[in-house]
Amino acid sequence: METHGETQDSAAGSIGDWATCSADPEYRAAVLDLLGALAYGELSAFERLAEDAKLAPGLADKAELARMASAEFQHYQRLHDRLAEVGADPQEAMRPFVEPLELFHRMTAPSDWLEGLVKAYVGDAIATDFYREVAVRLDDDTRDLVLGVMSDTGHAQFAVDKVRQAIEADPRSGGRLALWGRRLMGEALSQAQRVVAERDALSNLLVGGSVQGFDLVEVGKMFNRITEAHTRRMAALGLAS
Amino acid sequence: METHGETQDSAAGSIGDWATCSADPEYRAAVLDLLGALAYGELSAFERLAEDAKLAPGLADKAELARMASAEFQHYQRLHDRLAEVGADPQEAMRPFVEPLELFHRMTAPSDWLEGLVKAYVGDAIATDFYREVAVRLDDDTRDLVLGVMSDTGHAQFAVDKVRQAIEADPRSGGRLALWGRRLMGEALSQAQRVVAERDALSNLLVGGSVQGFDLVEVGKMFNRITEAHTRRMAALGLAS
Repeated sequence: METHGETQDSAAGSIGDWATCSADPEYRAAVLDLLGALAYGELSAFERLAEDAKLAPGLADKAELARMASAEFQHYQRLHDRLAEVGADPQEAMRPFVEPLELFHRMTAPSDWLEGLVKAYVGDAIATDFYREVAVRLDDDTRDLVLGVMSDTGHAQFAVDKVRQAIEADPRSGGRLALWGRRLMGEALSQAQRVVAERDALSNLLVGGSVQGFDLVEVGKMFNRITEAHTRRMAALGLAS
Repeated sequence: METHGETQDSAAGSIGDWATCSADPEYRAAVLDLLGALAYGELSAFERLAEDAKLAPGLADKAELARMASAEFQHYQRLHDRLAEVGADPQEAMRPFVEPLELFHRMTAPSDWLEGLVKAYVGDAIATDFYREVAVRLDDDTRDLVLGVMSDTGHAQFAVDKVRQAIEADPRSGGRLALWGRRLMGEALSQAQRVVAERDALSNLLVGGSVQGFDLVEVGKMFNRITEAHTRRMAALGLAS
């Protein structure tokens, strides 16, 4: 991942390990929120990819989607086990994020195979960008876990190849998919804002507070970086964002 | 190859390894059919369990179903890799079994969480019984693979517990689920007969031919054993079969 001017200093440092940092109850609550959101996100990604597998035009594509769904589930399992290890109830930790994520998925149900691929690609990438930005603010143990479960499951290249092929074969589909990409980004930001408004500890981790966090200007810059990365990814798909 | 009189004897013996046995083209074709059917069965089980996960009444149940789906996918991957390893096209090997399995699933779409659990439990168990019966007739390498991917994914006990609890809470649901179990067995037998009628090499592996197989009386006995095991399993669920 590239480094950025203002965040570089905090990215380079370490705030300590989990044992030290979690002595602060607000830090602990924020990390449990983060891991809970991430865990439900993975479980939800499993379901979404398994659902997309049904739309696959052939057996090889179906198996590829099932493979990726299975990889997401392994990530979920690691997050679940970590939550249990630090004495949290994994289901309780996930619960606040069920509704926002389900709402996002309901608002952005793909109507075909290509929309499903674009959604999985764009959605995963936005989530990965976000968690990698946050990861540099975390204690060493949590950071390693977050970066580990954000590792590439091979989905990105698969989606880029398939979508580019489809647009080359039928250039008119590009306009529809570009619109779709914009809608996905809008709904993702809208649900993210809702979560930030409702989860105090998590928001403090982002905008500063007891934890070494972002100030509001930095949060704005972070969202800019994520939006710019989204624009580059849409271009990689052959779509205007 | 050694010769064997009774089932018990052949169960104890070995017909050799894959390198030896696959020199016979008909044996090779039969095993590719068997692995293709098994591979698509696992991929299809992945999809079905992922679909059932959406019906789960809570997060813990949902995650448990996703875990089992993921385990089925790992089995699929092993079968896929084995087909490729012996020089077969995995997709070609699976293709003849797509329609019968999809038809089975279409005829037996569960209308709720409990029907889904009973179907997964009964369906997996019938498939496991069948493949274990066939496994003793196979070369050592194929037998080890088949028994390996038929290993318990923890689904059986999960389903038994949940269904028994549900029937205790609402005894009237027992009658509906008993009917459902009979329908599942009927549709499974109907699709199995269709496959046997269409796949000559596979049928020869079962009823004799160039390969040391079952005779028709033994096939009848095998189906009796599978049906009896089904009856015992329905009783374990608290259902009349």
